[in-house]
Amino acid sequence: MNYRAVSHYLGLVLKLEAICMLAAFAVSMFYGEAVMMKSLLMSAGITFLAGVILGLLSGRDMKIRLRESFVIIAVCWIAMSLMGALPFWLSGVMESFVDCVFESVSGFTTTAASVLVNTGSAPKGLLFWRSLSLWVGGMGVLVLLTATALISWGEGGTQNLMAENPGPVPGKLVPKLKNNARIIYSVYIGLTALETILLSAGGMPLFDSVLTAMATAGTGGFTIHNASVAAYGSLYIETVITVFMFMCGVNFNIYFFLLVRAFADIRKNEELKVYIGIVLGASLLVALNLSAGGAYPSFFVSLRHSVFQVVSIMSTTGFLTADVALWPSLSRIILFFLMLIGACAGSSAGGLKIARVVLLFKEVKRALFRVIRPRAVTMVKLDGKAVDRYVLHAANAYIVAYFILFALSFIVISADNIDFEGSATVVAACMNNIGAGLGLTDTGKYALFSPLSKLVLMFDMLLGRLEIYPVLLLFSPRTWRHL
Amino acid sequence: MNYRAVSHYLGLVLKLEAICMLAAFAVSMFYGEAVMMKSLLMSAGITFLAGVILGLLSGRDMKIRLRESFVIIAVCWIAMSLMGALPFWLSGVMESFVDCVFESVSGFTTTAASVLVNTGSAPKGLLFWRSLSLWVGGMGVLVLLTATALISWGEGGTQNLMAENPGPVPGKLVPKLKNNARIIYSVYIGLTALETILLSAGGMPLFDSVLTAMATAGTGGFTIHNASVAAYGSLYIETVITVFMFMCGVNFNIYFFLLVRAFADIRKNEELKVYIGIVLGASLLVALNLSAGGAYPSFFVSLRHSVFQVVSIMSTTGFLTADVALWPSLSRIILFFLMLIGACAGSSAGGLKIARVVLLFKEVKRALFRVIRPRAVTMVKLDGKAVDRYVLHAANAYIVAYFILFALSFIVISADNIDFEGSATVVAACMNNIGAGLGLTDTGKYALFSPLSKLVLMFDMLLGRLEIYPVLLLFSPRTWRHL
Repeated sequence: MNYRAVSHYLGLVLKLEAICMLAAFAVSMFYGEAVMMKSLLMSAGITFLAGVILGLLSGRDMKIRLRESFVIIAVCWIAMSLMGALPFWLSGVMESFVDCVFESVSGFTTTAASVLVNTGSAPKGLLFWRSLSLWVGGMGVLVLLTATALISWGEGGTQNLMAENPGPVPGKLVPKLKNNARIIYSVYIGLTALETILLSAGGMPLFDSVLTAMATAGTGGFTIHNASVAAYGSLYIETVITVFMFMCGVNFNIYFFLLVRAFADIRKNEELKVYIGIVLGASLLVALNLSAGGAYPSFFVSLRHSVFQVVSIMSTTGFLTADVALWPSLSRIILFFLMLIGACAGSSAGGLKIARVVLLFKEVKRALFRVIRPRAVTMVKLDGKAVDRYVLHAANAYIVAYFILFALSFIVISADNIDFEGSATVVAACMNNIGAGLGLTDTGKYALFSPLSKLVLMFDMLLGRLEIYPVLLLFSPRTWRHL
Repeated sequence: MNYRAVSHYLGLVLKLEAICMLAAFAVSMFYGEAVMMKSLLMSAGITFLAGVILGLLSGRDMKIRLRESFVIIAVCWIAMSLMGALPFWLSGVMESFVDCVFESVSGFTTTAASVLVNTGSAPKGLLFWRSLSLWVGGMGVLVLLTATALISWGEGGTQNLMAENPGPVPGKLVPKLKNNARIIYSVYIGLTALETILLSAGGMPLFDSVLTAMATAGTGGFTIHNASVAAYGSLYIETVITVFMFMCGVNFNIYFFLLVRAFADIRKNEELKVYIGIVLGASLLVALNLSAGGAYPSFFVSLRHSVFQVVSIMSTTGFLTADVALWPSLSRIILFFLMLIGACAGSSAGGLKIARVVLLFKEVKRALFRVIRPRAVTMVKLDGKAVDRYVLHAANAYIVAYFILFALSFIVISADNIDFEGSATVVAACMNNIGAGLGLTDTGKYALFSPLSKLVLMFDMLLGRLEIYPVLLLFSPRTWRHL
């Protein structure tokens, strides 16, 4: 392990985090919140100092292997979350430090699983900090995408990159990844700005618009109101949010393709087609089920709620307009599986990712074919290209690791004696970075869990967000060996 | 597709089934049940006739490829189940033909998911037929093991055999598989006989003893009493059943090794160790959880119930001594995961099989190691031997197919508006051939489901019992092409 390189990057990230805290400080100052200003300033100071110290520890040898890059990713997310808990703690809004860390992990992992029981009375500076951490986390995931790409390609093997991001990678279009990264961040920032404008235009207060847009871009559902998006009661606002949630679940390389007018690449993108297909199919099925049960006055109202909830859960955002706890079993179980699948690889969304699920479906089809023709040479194709067997292998191992960790978390959570559905959906909501579950886990409800469960759920959020391996590697003694 | 070969084997199997029906006829005659005797005799006649006709259709070319062997397996199980439904239907004990087929599929797949609401008043000949079908089904699984072994080895590839049975295969010990098969059946019959004697010795009526022993050997939980094994209220009887359930979940090759005194092979068998470990660990954990909740008067009573239920569910038998529906969440969720894992490969038990789960755990460990040392040559070992990559691949594809089919069944079942836990455990109980779930699916409760759900559950039972591929192949047009 090249500790000095890890220290270098960690220092850098913490310094950037301190700057973000200053932005929240400015907001707090604007609203004249004295206590909050003080705690944000102190947090920024401590975080910056930690960053400077870590920076001094860094050396000249900056050689990074796959191992270091994974460790950097995991350690950065954990350190950011710990420092990010300071404003919650110092301001005295939350008493338990575990709860503060929970809220912060929940932000940086774009989960938005909240223990803050009453958001209405929280200082605006703190709410801004919470949403900013989410937005930064979402951007971080996109950085991650490019960073691991750079590192893996440098090491001469694309398999590990592909395992992380089974979606489309812009091949030879632009060989300079840095340029590609710049375009992706611009899209991220552009989408946030555009949504803010559209929401404000619809009559949402500017503060709410900014926070909602940041939450949408990062696909995390932190809201200003306890009733989530239902609080606005506006079809226009719901529609804008739905469209942006959907767009933030799309692989960001698609927008890159759009900008360079590579329409052929978009057209042959299977993941996008499946994404659109599932959203349409699930929305219709849920609307029909709701309509048959007579839950809402008309089919249109059922459809309005089903589309919003389906897109919200599939994009792993977690905004709500309806009390899903009252929906019939079929609708709830469809939503549960959408929670697991998530949206496209290379977006800020969590979940297993559609590309991975598509690959696995094709794997099963191939396994069947092999029984009929045992000697035939078969291969799995995605977007018309043959998929490397290492990529397939990695996708398989990923799904197995995912289910093992899901099962273990499920068992631990159930010790709180919450029912089967409650335990299953809470773990799903955290591992897939959705936050809101199917009723039990609406705003603030995470406060009900025991400290042990909260710890497990934080771990799940990190596992899901960083795609398992970086976090697991921290627990292997082999990782920490010198060289 | 070599239709004539399929026809030949199908005819043979049906003739054997007719003989089994005559055995049930004899039992019915002993108890003087006139209506039952008549319907069993008619069923035997129809089944035998069908077998003779199919036999006439068979040709000289008996060449069987992997494809044919899979189709034969699937078609035989379906045909046996359809014919096996006749005694239920002709006797008038059940009115709906779907229910009759359900009960029969449930028997031949060793699931023992019953729609027979009151077993106490059913004719003894019919109860005997039901348990006999289960016992024959269990033996059939062991035949399958040897048959696919013969076929796959004949085709020059062991990978497909291994994919089906990832457990230990007696390598060069006895090259003649037929001899091996004979030993395995002898063990199966021997275990059944021994349990019958031990249960009778404990005061259980002979009829009950025979049926219970057959159900145990086939790892299906058909019982004579609505209250399952709790009806006897005897610690001795529960202990005998527990020991035999455990033993029938062990890979039968272990008994073969025992007989040829190959103790070294037993000692290095990882699956057996994990099986024992999980049973002990889970029993203790559940007992502690029950004890902490104060569900039973003493820790000993908690342990008695936890050991029985853990072994019953893990061996996929499904006998019950307690109302699991009243147990705390943690215990229930532990049992749920034991349902999915099941017992050892090469036993009459269902489930994913421990060997497969162990392989997958090792795969994840290897994937992690590859991040640390991307260029290292790694391999997964089981029982000290390197596992072929086709075997690993097949195990991976199997688990993915399993979860996809589980999810689809779960969604369809939930349309009956049963709660989340109910739907999940019912599907788990059928796909893993357990029958009894966690309360909802005790004796006779399957009668509550809609015909569509029953159809899906029958399909699940077949999928689980035949390890997915043979059943899925029936739906591929490629399978049916000439040549």
